[in-house]
Amino acid sequence: MFMIFSSKLIEDAVQEFSKLPGIGRKTALRMVLQLLKTEEAEVDAFANAVSRMRHEVKFCKVCNNVSDAEICVICVNPGRDHSKVCVVENIRDVIAIESTQQYNGLYHVLGGILSPLDGIGPEQLYIASLQERVKNNAIEELIMALSPTIEGDTTVYYIARQLKDLPVRITTIARGIAFGGELEYADEMTLARSIAKRLPIENYVNVKNS
Amino acid sequence: MFMIFSSKLIEDAVQEFSKLPGIGRKTALRMVLQLLKTEEAEVDAFANAVSRMRHEVKFCKVCNNVSDAEICVICVNPGRDHSKVCVVENIRDVIAIESTQQYNGLYHVLGGILSPLDGIGPEQLYIASLQERVKNNAIEELIMALSPTIEGDTTVYYIARQLKDLPVRITTIARGIAFGGELEYADEMTLARSIAKRLPIENYVNVKNS
Repeated sequence: MFMIFSSKLIEDAVQEFSKLPGIGRKTALRMVLQLLKTEEAEVDAFANAVSRMRHEVKFCKVCNNVSDAEICVICVNPGRDHSKVCVVENIRDVIAIESTQQYNGLYHVLGGILSPLDGIGPEQLYIASLQERVKNNAIEELIMALSPTIEGDTTVYYIARQLKDLPVRITTIARGIAFGGELEYADEMTLARSIAKRLPIENYVNVKNS
Repeated sequence: MFMIFSSKLIEDAVQEFSKLPGIGRKTALRMVLQLLKTEEAEVDAFANAVSRMRHEVKFCKVCNNVSDAEICVICVNPGRDHSKVCVVENIRDVIAIESTQQYNGLYHVLGGILSPLDGIGPEQLYIASLQERVKNNAIEELIMALSPTIEGDTTVYYIARQLKDLPVRITTIARGIAFGGELEYADEMTLARSIAKRLPIENYVNVKNS
């Protein structure tokens, strides 16, 4: 949308906000006008938090998750189960799984999934470091939590092949009908798999009560 | 939505973004992760534009519009028609009218409209300064471009009464069916008014061609 501003300062700020994903110029203007009404100190806190985040965030040397220190708070936590590593595509997945408060192991962030068409091969991902990690630590299980797509499955198979000589169990998260999901809206692939991988009712009850 | 982060820096930035209007924590996270992938210099440019905007934007001493200087670029422009002043509620309205590129007069930003229930009386708005402005300048017409609500109409009547002894013509922007709007979806008030204020067809053709 074309907009004419009578202040270059406002225009610049709107311009910057509209570079953010999913933010058009109208929404950007709404944000800028809101900040204009906010206390100066609060706006500075906003700007500083953004700037500091970009300059100071590190990537954990062990798992590649975002971290405030060289090693992330998950990897240094002795209270977590260091024999389990959940392999995910990106840090958003770590946040999603952490937010369930149901998983107590460690993570390994691949930084993407194999996608030859987009030029993403094993070298572009943290697969070699995963292999090293499994080799040098007492890791008993790798839980593959990748997207249920062809690329995700390919990545799982590739990693499994790379690690086949190491004494580690590789599992994948369960696929099926989402909790609260309607059968009729599930795609055929998911529905077919969830029938093929059906569970005895005792398991179902156990899972619900665990 | 509840989220657990392994980085305080990320968490703080998400927290700050989610204070913006219409931004939930998921959207805030998306923005933060996008900025994390952006060049440091660009993120600094973003933070600086926001901070500078808040510290340096002024409000024009004549019309109360946002401005980079004491008097805004519209008020100092000798190419504009200084005999016409369009009275609006806020700076967003100025941007909307400017963006049509059809209006060449000046503005007066009231800073709101009369709303006794919200404690907004004439003293809370820039009505006295409008009166002074009309008194001390050769202003021939005030175009009232306020919301078509009871509060908007009340404000128009109040200002008209305040200025009744001054030689200024007061007009309001036309109300009617929006261009491209469907008759059946128009509210009764708008439809009734647009029938009562019907125009001869020649006027209609002139407006379209002007």
